[in-house]
Amino acid sequence: MHDHYSGRSTVKQNFYKASILVVEDNPDHWMLIQEALGECLPEVQTVWVSTAKEAETYLADCLADQANLPKLMLLDLYLPDAGPSWTLIQKIKRPNSPYIRMPIVVFSYSNSQEDINELYRFGGTSYIVKPSTFDQWLAYFQSMRQYWWETVTLPGQNG
Amino acid sequence: MHDHYSGRSTVKQNFYKASILVVEDNPDHWMLIQEALGECLPEVQTVWVSTAKEAETYLADCLADQANLPKLMLLDLYLPDAGPSWTLIQKIKRPNSPYIRMPIVVFSYSNSQEDINELYRFGGTSYIVKPSTFDQWLAYFQSMRQYWWETVTLPGQNG
Repeated sequence: MHDHYSGRSTVKQNFYKASILVVEDNPDHWMLIQEALGECLPEVQTVWVSTAKEAETYLADCLADQANLPKLMLLDLYLPDAGPSWTLIQKIKRPNSPYIRMPIVVFSYSNSQEDINELYRFGGTSYIVKPSTFDQWLAYFQSMRQYWWETVTLPGQNG
Repeated sequence: MHDHYSGRSTVKQNFYKASILVVEDNPDHWMLIQEALGECLPEVQTVWVSTAKEAETYLADCLADQANLPKLMLLDLYLPDAGPSWTLIQKIKRPNSPYIRMPIVVFSYSNSQEDINELYRFGGTSYIVKPSTFDQWLAYFQSMRQYWWETVTLPGQNG
């Protein structure tokens, strides 16, 4: 991936004190995610919470401590209900939210057109059908690394 | 890329009657983009407009004709001024906009932290420093294909 075109400065900025917030209620899935993220994005710290409420508390604590916000949030839509996830997305993406710039990538086993449309309508960034094997998680995080970290310029910190 | 994990149904849906709307005022850059998109995403129709106003008209015409909206918009931020682009992004992403679900990928030669932060604050999806060679455009569109078309489930049509 290192022959990719992105300017060194963009890539450097994306990795600077970077973390991903993972919201996942299933500990087995978190283990797969953690392992795959560790292989594909070893430079990026991962933070795990298992409910939407804990995610909100974590983000508020980052602000209160003047710590860096996560560069990106990975959110399992069904925790096991989707209600708290929808509320969380709408809170993060409402005008004047201090977290509004953080991309939210949602994954779900559901392939429901209604869920997909709601996610984009509420300002969610990407909808991904949840991988079901470790190799699929690896492929997913490789694609995420290449797009978000090596191509895109992610939002700056708390600016 | 065909060993990628995405379910066949997701990939099929992403390519179904898919188009990209490219907003680019420089005809030379459009030629590079068109050529690179043709290599990387030959299944996807490209529509070119050169001003924010034309982009708005094109989207309104899609709605009026009950045609499919573009799956994604690629927007050059400086046309040559950024003002009309910011207005366009805010119009597309305001609540109740009929286009709100369409991802907006902005590219610009600028690496200005202010532009990057504004883009994400207004609901733009990704900020990309504009490639400067054809090979870099190819690398960019390969990454875009793999992420948006082969991994993510893009929004459905006008639903």
